Amino acid sequence: MFNKARLKDIFNDISTGKMSVAEAIKNCEIEENLGFAKIDHDRERRCGFPEVIFAEFKTTEHSLAIAESLLNKTGFAFLTRVPEQTKELILSKWPDADYNKLSKTIILGKLPDIHKNTKEHNVLVISAGTSDIPVAEEAAVTARVMGCNVEYLHDAGVAGIHRILGAEPQLKKASVIIVTAGMEGALPSVVAGLVDCPVIGVPTSIGYGASFKGIAALLGMLNSCANGVAVVNIDNGFGAGCLAARIIKKVKEN
Amino acid sequence: MFNKARLKDIFNDISTGKMSVAEAIKNCEIEENLGFAKIDHDRERRCGFPEVIFAEFKTTEHSLAIAESLLNKTGFAFLTRVPEQTKELILSKWPDADYNKLSKTIILGKLPDIHKNTKEHNVLVISAGTSDIPVAEEAAVTARVMGCNVEYLHDAGVAGIHRILGAEPQLKKASVIIVTAGMEGALPSVVAGLVDCPVIGVPTSIGYGASFKGIAALLGMLNSCANGVAVVNIDNGFGAGCLAARIIKKVKEN
Amino acid sequence: MFNKARLKDIFNDISTGKMSVAEAIKNCEIEENLGFAKIDHDRERRCGFPEVIFAEFKTTEHSLAIAESLLNKTGFAFLTRVPEQTKELILSKWPDADYNKLSKTIILGKLPDIHKNTKEHNVLVISAGTSDIPVAEEAAVTARVMGCNVEYLHDAGVAGIHRILGAEPQLKKASVIIVTAGMEGALPSVVAGLVDCPVIGVPTSIGYGASFKGIAALLGMLNSCANGVAVVNIDNGFGAGCLAARIIKKVKEN
Amino acid sequence: MFNKARLKDIFNDISTGKMSVAEAIKNCEIEENLGFAKIDHDRERRCGFPEVIFAEFKTTEHSLAIAESLLNKTGFAFLTRVPEQTKELILSKWPDADYNKLSKTIILGKLPDIHKNTKEHNVLVISAGTSDIPVAEEAAVTARVMGCNVEYLHDAGVAGIHRILGAEPQLKKASVIIVTAGMEGALPSVVAGLVDCPVIGVPTSIGYGASFKGIAALLGMLNSCANGVAVVNIDNGFGAGCLAARIIKKVKEN
Amino acid sequence: MFNKARLKDIFNDISTGKMSVAEAIKNCEIEENLGFAKIDHDRERRCGFPEVIFAEFKTTEHSLAIAESLLNKTGFAFLTRVPEQTKELILSKWPDADYNKLSKTIILGKLPDIHKNTKEHNVLVISAGTSDIPVAEEAAVTARVMGCNVEYLHDAGVAGIHRILGAEPQLKKASVIIVTAGMEGALPSVVAGLVDCPVIGVPTSIGYGASFKGIAALLGMLNSCANGVAVVNIDNGFGAGCLAARIIKKVKEN
Amino acid sequence: MFNKARLKDIFNDISTGKMSVAEAIKNCEIEENLGFAKIDHDRERRCGFPEVIFAEFKTTEHSLAIAESLLNKTGFAFLTRVPEQTKELILSKWPDADYNKLSKTIILGKLPDIHKNTKEHNVLVISAGTSDIPVAEEAAVTARVMGCNVEYLHDAGVAGIHRILGAEPQLKKASVIIVTAGMEGALPSVVAGLVDCPVIGVPTSIGYGASFKGIAALLGMLNSCANGVAVVNIDNGFGAGCLAARIIKKVKEN
Amino acid sequence: MFNKARLKDIFNDISTGKMSVAEAIKNCEIEENLGFAKIDHDRERRCGFPEVIFAEFKTTEHSLAIAESLLNKTGFAFLTRVPEQTKELILSKWPDADYNKLSKTIILGKLPDIHKNTKEHNVLVISAGTSDIPVAEEAAVTARVMGCNVEYLHDAGVAGIHRILGAEPQLKKASVIIVTAGMEGALPSVVAGLVDCPVIGVPTSIGYGASFKGIAALLGMLNSCANGVAVVNIDNGFGAGCLAARIIKKVKEN
Amino acid sequence: MFNKARLKDIFNDISTGKMSVAEAIKNCEIEENLGFAKIDHDRERRCGFPEVIFAEFKTTEHSLAIAESLLNKTGFAFLTRVPEQTKELILSKWPDADYNKLSKTIILGKLPDIHKNTKEHNVLVISAGTSDIPVAEEAAVTARVMGCNVEYLHDAGVAGIHRILGAEPQLKKASVIIVTAGMEGALPSVVAGLVDCPVIGVPTSIGYGASFKGIAALLGMLNSCANGVAVVNIDNGFGAGCLAARIIKKVKEN
Repeated sequence: MFNKARLKDIFNDISTGKMSVAEAIKNCEIEENLGFAKIDHDRERRCGFPEVIFAEFKTTEHSLAIAESLLNKTGFAFLTRVPEQTKELILSKWPDADYNKLSKTIILGKLPDIHKNTKEHNVLVISAGTSDIPVAEEAAVTARVMGCNVEYLHDAGVAGIHRILGAEPQLKKASVIIVTAGMEGALPSVVAGLVDCPVIGVPTSIGYGASFKGIAALLGMLNSCANGVAVVNIDNGFGAGCLAARIIKKVKEN
Repeated sequence: MFNKARLKDIFNDISTGKMSVAEAIKNCEIEENLGFAKIDHDRERRCGFPEVIFAEFKTTEHSLAIAESLLNKTGFAFLTRVPEQTKELILSKWPDADYNKLSKTIILGKLPDIHKNTKEHNVLVISAGTSDIPVAEEAAVTARVMGCNVEYLHDAGVAGIHRILGAEPQLKKASVIIVTAGMEGALPSVVAGLVDCPVIGVPTSIGYGASFKGIAALLGMLNSCANGVAVVNIDNGFGAGCLAARIIKKVKEN
Repeated sequence: MFNKARLKDIFNDISTGKMSVAEAIKNCEIEENLGFAKIDHDRERRCGFPEVIFAEFKTTEHSLAIAESLLNKTGFAFLTRVPEQTKELILSKWPDADYNKLSKTIILGKLPDIHKNTKEHNVLVISAGTSDIPVAEEAAVTARVMGCNVEYLHDAGVAGIHRILGAEPQLKKASVIIVTAGMEGALPSVVAGLVDCPVIGVPTSIGYGASFKGIAALLGMLNSCANGVAVVNIDNGFGAGCLAARIIKKVKEN
Repeated sequence: MFNKARLKDIFNDISTGKMSVAEAIKNCEIEENLGFAKIDHDRERRCGFPEVIFAEFKTTEHSLAIAESLLNKTGFAFLTRVPEQTKELILSKWPDADYNKLSKTIILGKLPDIHKNTKEHNVLVISAGTSDIPVAEEAAVTARVMGCNVEYLHDAGVAGIHRILGAEPQLKKASVIIVTAGMEGALPSVVAGLVDCPVIGVPTSIGYGASFKGIAALLGMLNSCANGVAVVNIDNGFGAGCLAARIIKKVKEN
Repeated sequence: MFNKARLKDIFNDISTGKMSVAEAIKNCEIEENLGFAKIDHDRERRCGFPEVIFAEFKTTEHSLAIAESLLNKTGFAFLTRVPEQTKELILSKWPDADYNKLSKTIILGKLPDIHKNTKEHNVLVISAGTSDIPVAEEAAVTARVMGCNVEYLHDAGVAGIHRILGAEPQLKKASVIIVTAGMEGALPSVVAGLVDCPVIGVPTSIGYGASFKGIAALLGMLNSCANGVAVVNIDNGFGAGCLAARIIKKVKEN
Repeated sequence: MFNKARLKDIFNDISTGKMSVAEAIKNCEIEENLGFAKIDHDRERRCGFPEVIFAEFKTTEHSLAIAESLLNKTGFAFLTRVPEQTKELILSKWPDADYNKLSKTIILGKLPDIHKNTKEHNVLVISAGTSDIPVAEEAAVTARVMGCNVEYLHDAGVAGIHRILGAEPQLKKASVIIVTAGMEGALPSVVAGLVDCPVIGVPTSIGYGASFKGIAALLGMLNSCANGVAVVNIDNGFGAGCLAARIIKKVKEN
Repeated sequence: MFNKARLKDIFNDISTGKMSVAEAIKNCEIEENLGFAKIDHDRERRCGFPEVIFAEFKTTEHSLAIAESLLNKTGFAFLTRVPEQTKELILSKWPDADYNKLSKTIILGKLPDIHKNTKEHNVLVISAGTSDIPVAEEAAVTARVMGCNVEYLHDAGVAGIHRILGAEPQLKKASVIIVTAGMEGALPSVVAGLVDCPVIGVPTSIGYGASFKGIAALLGMLNSCANGVAVVNIDNGFGAGCLAARIIKKVKEN
Repeated sequence: MFNKARLKDIFNDISTGKMSVAEAIKNCEIEENLGFAKIDHDRERRCGFPEVIFAEFKTTEHSLAIAESLLNKTGFAFLTRVPEQTKELILSKWPDADYNKLSKTIILGKLPDIHKNTKEHNVLVISAGTSDIPVAEEAAVTARVMGCNVEYLHDAGVAGIHRILGAEPQLKKASVIIVTAGMEGALPSVVAGLVDCPVIGVPTSIGYGASFKGIAALLGMLNSCANGVAVVNIDNGFGAGCLAARIIKKVKEN
């Protein structure tokens, strides 16, 4: 927003009278200040998608107020990692809210207008084991909310390697693949060795003992012997969904 | 290669005589066995790019033999993290080898035929500080070898935040951005908050004390408060370049 | 399953009409897809034992559905680390289920037909302290389910070294020894120095402070000054039991 | 040696005059004291193989003296992780010494008499990448010295999953499989999912950044989603070889 | 208290009769011994502020007794990290107690007499996200209790970099800035690059997965590429407030 | 028990008829086998004190059975880290049991006969802060049970350095000093610099954030710049008490 | 630079003709782009001091070029952690360069004009041990270059607590105290308990074993039981010096 | 030195004229200030032994100057971890210096007068393996310098448990036992279970991979299942020797 080129234009416009000083200042109003939060109404212009509410550590009051502000401005709000109490209050206030039990996400209002038909550019969300499905679902919901076409492939871990090999046709047609895996987190390496699209590895906290709540899987993915693997934080299905959506956006723009 | 659909086709072809058993078997020959190494000549078909030689921990003899094998088969070989001694021997054997001093990469032969003019889809490689340039260069060389158009932006770290803000036009036109940063590794978060394309964070081992050779930067990037950040291993410019190339490939295919 | 030699045979059989294409395809059906899970019905052929249900992180519904599928196909199912709620539901659905309170395992149906009389090839399961017994029991149940003859030796830690020395006759006659130990995890080293059979060390999370929930014991076992020690994950009695069963299988096959 | 049953026999023999007190005492002489080292001449009886000299941290003088003592008593000595200087002195003193450059092991004298023909019970040593070969070789040499029949399979990592799948016949006929792998260390999981014999995972220190000199591979193997995986210390080819030899010994004894 | 210069004065005074031995001894009475605690009544003289009660790990009885002792001596007590039960008892005993729900602090009695009007030397407390507000509030309450003039700036994290840039006037007029931030903890670096006053970074435990309960943010701040950043413990708003107060005290003294 | 010298004596005694074989065997009966536990009735002879029951991870049933066995044999039992439920059952079974609420220890029966008057050789137990008292109390109870004379010094941390300096007379007359400290754990260094007796540092888990539940204090004590500091596990008051008792025993024996 | 208030002024000035567009644009020129580096010539205005060259990881060429650029613009350059080769070249190019052997810093040209006489506001730099002096010196040189008056107190660690107590007069008159300490890093806690000014703790990498190259000291300082301690990175004397200078600047401004 | 009781005496003496002010001040002169170091000439009075020079991180000049100062004052100096260059200079300056090649210690001058005949109170220094001897030797030299009678037992690790059992007579007669052990560090537990004297565990950095330069051994010793184990820093033979000497001193004083 504040780069030199844009400023030069504004300066020129003011200088030539094309733009009033008030209008120029107005151009800088890109946030709403709630005191405890600044709603970033410029986020969509910059990053392609409005702000999302990460509800886990916010008080219920804060989450609701931010949701209301976004809903008022844009007719839409998206909350992730919603704690039980916050969910209850949101559902009682907005009974139409779309709550996903597996991913603990809530969609309020109408999805942003980025949902053109894009069946041909899909995101494939894979889980290595049944226990990884909640994180996979968070990734899927996020990607879908951000305008992606999502497919699933569940329980395809490396202990039965034929399961992922048998899914090669599905693998081949994806534009982006998200792989959620706990324990040793080896599946992204195998997948990335089979396809030519970007693979997003999401380590999950599934495991015990020396899995250290997902560290083993995280390290496994960071050290992948196959290239083309992007890694996000442990259990960060949301981040994987966002990243996939950014990639698909570029693919679609073309 | 071995999925059911493809096998069904082969079975049918054999059954109807379209394909001889010998041809069917031939279809399975996808590697060359050097004893100490199996050259994966199917890699390009599967993943869009031939095998690359990670030379750091290989004996000089092994690296040379693999390079020669690839060169013979495909007319091209790419080596990364080439140790001094290996470099010397390769340069004396192939005096035309393209050695990059900063990134310690070597290109042998003719680049693969994936270099269509793609000026409009570029990869922007950013370094947070001057010390991060070698890793940035490894990313840039890799992406370029894999068919990408690469631009640079050096020394744009967050201690002087105007430097990255001033580069907004350059940021906005990239299809993928690679950010190499050591120390606290904060730059990818800031960049991802300014653009709508995927951002690949490469933590570097630049720093001392509690940087723990790149762990601080790695954790910083994994915990980015901005969405859309893909993380690769510490100092893994190669991985970032590959990931960018996979994304650009999908963008170009469209 | 998909190796070249086997494919060559299939190709030849199709070519000569010995096998129909339908039969050839049938040969590739090795999994049952429940959507949220793929039951690997080929596991027993490949690995010598059917799939086991690791119930800790699965929803109760998922665990029950997988158990039911396995029970239907094979007349048997084995669940480990069964959470309270899942246990309750399984016991109310299958009142005959064999629930082991110490190890939190459940056996449903009839044990696989690998239970020939093998009294002479036994697995000795040792606990260093009384607190390590639950993990020891998980190992014992698993090994027994997988066809092993199991003996116990409890509370034989190194603080009273005569306890393990006094058990030498029992040590000597085992084909495999499993040692569960928390705190400093020193017992596997001492045992491995007294016998000539493989010793499987299972670090347990028993301890506090700098035991770091089993890390101290894990590191102790990985750094054993005695040779012949195999290590598995912290508290992984199941893994130790499986490993012992694989070894015994090879001993029995002979 | 000191268990109650054995003592009872000795007591009885002394009491009945079958054994003199001197003979009884002689039975307890099981070590030779060099001052700086106690040679454990009872090791072979207890553990099936004489003491091995771990030379890495010993002074050259100590390593030589221990080697000489063992050689004198048993006609054989085996040294691992031999530093350059120690190697030079040993080769100048015993020019016939069998030095293995890759594994940095030395064999002095004649191998112990445990080398019956056991072609049918083999140990398969796999390396995930060419860089893992030195550790694989240490495992192979050790297993061979301890009486095993060893085969190799090199460069079969998961980035080209067909390489390990194509080796299925070789996998199937092994009694024990040793898998050396660095980086994410995923290969043991895939292998253990394909076979029914015990699989010994040896994490190697190959990798950089977040591989943390083998920790990533170690954690990956400890958290294997496939059962039947035994783990040893990072780069501990020796330990893997010993463990394999103990298992084969039990198989052979049968 | 016990330095040589002071002792020399006391010695001289005794020697010349200016001070009696009793008075000299009295000078050494600087603590009150409650048995389970020694109240340090010299703290204010030495450090500029009376002892504060860190209540989190104390029994309710101990916290109350110490509070009472301080209240009796000085008419004032300040408690931090007050657990629920302790809070209830304090509020029932001293109904006028000033309990802050966000920061979980309690002020008893009258603030110390260090509250001159110092509007011109203010401490600016910034939170990167709404979730960081409780820690920010602990810092703010502490600084205010210790005589500082405090201002707030909430939810100004780097994902929307314009938010902190837009606050530049507020930044510029602060004498000390406290920045609380979780996740990657990048905000202190950006702030320190914009101002010339000391910046106190407080990593918070907000985040999940590889944030490791604040370690990522802590490392980020310790490795700041901007100079002038002081770091305190994770979630240590109290420490940041104290540090700010010490700095402001020196500024005011001037 | 099994050393050569002692065996030689036994052999001679049998040989000369001084000892019957039955008596010789009887000499080897040094443990009672409860199945889940082996009571080590030789512990007192070897180590100077009977076995102690570490109750934290044992089932209530196991703890009671072991306590009963010890009580029957020796008229005394000592339990540490007793969980709530175990405590309730013990108190209802043995209403005279001596339960210490702070240290969560229980003494059953009559103390061993090692309680000669030893006022002159005391153990001084210091806590750095009031929150460290429970661990200090565990150390004190243990040392007292094992025959030591114990004194206390509470809340003497380094933030008010005069508190420990003022206690110099008390410090000087101790034979052993136990210092419990959380947070940075600096107090043992200061104490060891003031006295000439052994100082036992017990890091406690008091603290938060980067205290990592006692790791900071543990590392602080291990790296003490003052010599003469012995370190035990985090929160291991029991271990410190035992160590002190062993030292005092040697002092008294003299 | 880019805040709304300032922009409003510029807009108004352009609008009223007070400022030409060219001048307005000129205001945004705050960096010099060397390609591999962007010299931040606005740093001094924002942060009170020009950019400093952290030379450790830069190529010699880069360090020299940046130094030259700064020298040309401002007549001054300051380099820290200068590697041997870079030092040699700088000294041969600028023979007057002020190289400090202990701190490995270089000062080129004339110090910035912030050196008013400020004897009354001093920074006291303390080292816990003689081995910590190089880090202390880096802090001292940095603070002095940034306009502070610096005093020293060396070898005052807690093992001889009288040494720091004896320096109380020197402690009392400092406005800021920097304490460098390795091993357990306890000195800052003791110092902060004796004074009322801010204390900057610099953990050093002095120590071995469980000091983990300064982690023990770092954790010790972060968990200080005394308030008022600011922590910087391990061995970061430079950061401590900068922080002290920022504080002194505020004190002086008053 | 500065405690109230002592001050009261001094005050009284001054008051009554028994002591002049000058004499009183003289009593506080307990250090010699070399600028870069403060020699603590009161250390022996307080702690029973003069200051020791830890030479590893000191410049050669500093080590020599401190040695000279101590030598002049007390006729004796003791240096540990002496680097090569420092050793050379000391030996050329004081050709009679007693340099121990294994422990890298130097003794200058005449040992302090604490060497009464104490044959009956010995320190037994045990090494688990031959590679641990250098650390054991540092402990032995230190203990001997501090007046202890030292015996050795080398290469008695747990892999051949009979070696330590066979040494029971030697174990039984020691007043303190020091056990140096690397790898899993299990030997102190076994020893402490066999004796009633204090056992000092010294983890050594011997090992590789997951030994993490001694961390595995350190954790093993901290979590010892046997009581009575004191732990010191990794490779800290010096610390173990000092601790033993303090204990022996108390034993002798009795």
